[in-house]
Amino acid sequence: MNSPQSTDAITNVRIAIVGLGLIGGSFGAALKQNGYTGHISALVRTDAAAAKATASGYVDHASTDAQSVVSDADVVLLAVPMLAMRAQLELVKPFLKPDCVVTDAGSVKGPFVEDARTVLKDMSNVVPGHPIAGREKSGIDAVDAALYQGKRVLLTPLGITLPSAVELVTRLWQQCGAVVESLAVDHHDRVLASTSHLPHALAFALVDTLTSGQQHEEIFRYAAGGFSDFTRIASGDAVMWRDIFLTNKTAVCDALDTFNLHLAELRDAIESEDGDKLETVFKRAKQSRDEHFQSAISTTTTAKN
Amino acid sequence: MNSPQSTDAITNVRIAIVGLGLIGGSFGAALKQNGYTGHISALVRTDAAAAKATASGYVDHASTDAQSVVSDADVVLLAVPMLAMRAQLELVKPFLKPDCVVTDAGSVKGPFVEDARTVLKDMSNVVPGHPIAGREKSGIDAVDAALYQGKRVLLTPLGITLPSAVELVTRLWQQCGAVVESLAVDHHDRVLASTSHLPHALAFALVDTLTSGQQHEEIFRYAAGGFSDFTRIASGDAVMWRDIFLTNKTAVCDALDTFNLHLAELRDAIESEDGDKLETVFKRAKQSRDEHFQSAISTTTTAKN
Repeated sequence: MNSPQSTDAITNVRIAIVGLGLIGGSFGAALKQNGYTGHISALVRTDAAAAKATASGYVDHASTDAQSVVSDADVVLLAVPMLAMRAQLELVKPFLKPDCVVTDAGSVKGPFVEDARTVLKDMSNVVPGHPIAGREKSGIDAVDAALYQGKRVLLTPLGITLPSAVELVTRLWQQCGAVVESLAVDHHDRVLASTSHLPHALAFALVDTLTSGQQHEEIFRYAAGGFSDFTRIASGDAVMWRDIFLTNKTAVCDALDTFNLHLAELRDAIESEDGDKLETVFKRAKQSRDEHFQSAISTTTTAKN
Repeated sequence: MNSPQSTDAITNVRIAIVGLGLIGGSFGAALKQNGYTGHISALVRTDAAAAKATASGYVDHASTDAQSVVSDADVVLLAVPMLAMRAQLELVKPFLKPDCVVTDAGSVKGPFVEDARTVLKDMSNVVPGHPIAGREKSGIDAVDAALYQGKRVLLTPLGITLPSAVELVTRLWQQCGAVVESLAVDHHDRVLASTSHLPHALAFALVDTLTSGQQHEEIFRYAAGGFSDFTRIASGDAVMWRDIFLTNKTAVCDALDTFNLHLAELRDAIESEDGDKLETVFKRAKQSRDEHFQSAISTTTTAKN
């Protein structure tokens, strides 16, 4: 189920962003840069953050007071770590307009649906979402109005979700330059466990392995270029990633177990000097990666045109 | 033991390159671009490759005939996959001048030393070397005169190696823009097993895992940006990597075993929902990576000035 890629600018909805880090801040910055002229407010944790947020120009109003931020909002985007979602929902709920659309940017969709159902009860205006865009830098200082350009945003609406709510969230992300697609909640969490959470687990474990070694200074010193690319994702925000692993643990552990079988096979082939097996696996991996990323690049280019 | 970083151009030595792929071709291209005006010949496998090599301008002469390539050479660089080294040494040996310096660009140094000792006997003019520079593209079409700019080249001379031979190879790599360092053979192979071979094994195993899954089309479709970086190294040349794993198998298996212990710990922390442990590991990994690559960047910048 893919939503139509509308390009009409949305200017008349009032937006509230809960959590103004890389993801929330870049959402505001992208909208403002791409012709959105409506009002954006942001809920932040400290007065200092509020002052910084307002000065940044990404939002029109920022405050630590939930009521002042969300009471006029037509749509609220929650952009906080997964385990902070429920408390933030509880914080804003008393002040939400009855037909306010609630969406989020969390990396795991099942737990957000559960949190929203528990806190909000009525799910008809809830549109769970996940922008597949990130950086190794986090926080408002890393905000980039181009972060979502050509990137996918996955929405996981429920059967009960109003089409109008999905349409509104879709159009906002499109106005950020993103390509919006929809898929089922569980499906999303299983696929992302493989494509995102598993690679992050490997990168974290690799850096941890090398850092724990006796000679880690020189290990980093003699690291090859690929190592830097490979471990970049180990510089992701620790709390955000802690929460992702904790909230998607079953799918992540399944993905790790499958990976371990393949890694054990590879190790066996090395130890038994099975050159044919190694060459076959490496050729297949190269071919698969080259093919898929070639087509991924084409898709992105097409989407931008 | 670090060699002095001389910047005097070398123009009067005759060079032979055995194997004109990314590594060998970029060596020739870098020398020609950086003021080297001497003669470079290349040993290739087919007449078509010889014609292409000569037309490229990276070398002055290319041929499938070993005698015509190496008989006048003052220095020979072997740039072929690890398991092809011995046969190439045997091929060129009859035609080498008595004082010809022999060096290589292989990723594992122990087996090259063994091959050279077996074939050449006298090791006084043998300088094992390893440029830490690579790309996911291979072959002569991927040649880049800037490939070695600011990159490290590790030499692993033996006690018997003549200082003049080390000095010559050092100056050639410096003229390619590289920073040259020396370390012991075994030490090199253990360190690189961790910093390069292990990450490649993980990337190959990850792509293999995802490619083997039932839904691999959409797994690649929803891959995040970090995934592309993470798996780039799985596009390395299959034969080159087969040979690296086979020739450095003990150190690679040790590195894999250590990694597996850390990955198992991480999986346990996820399964038991040990958030504190996860956050600690992730913060340590981020801090370590950020620190080391910051200093690595500084080193590179300094080296370029």
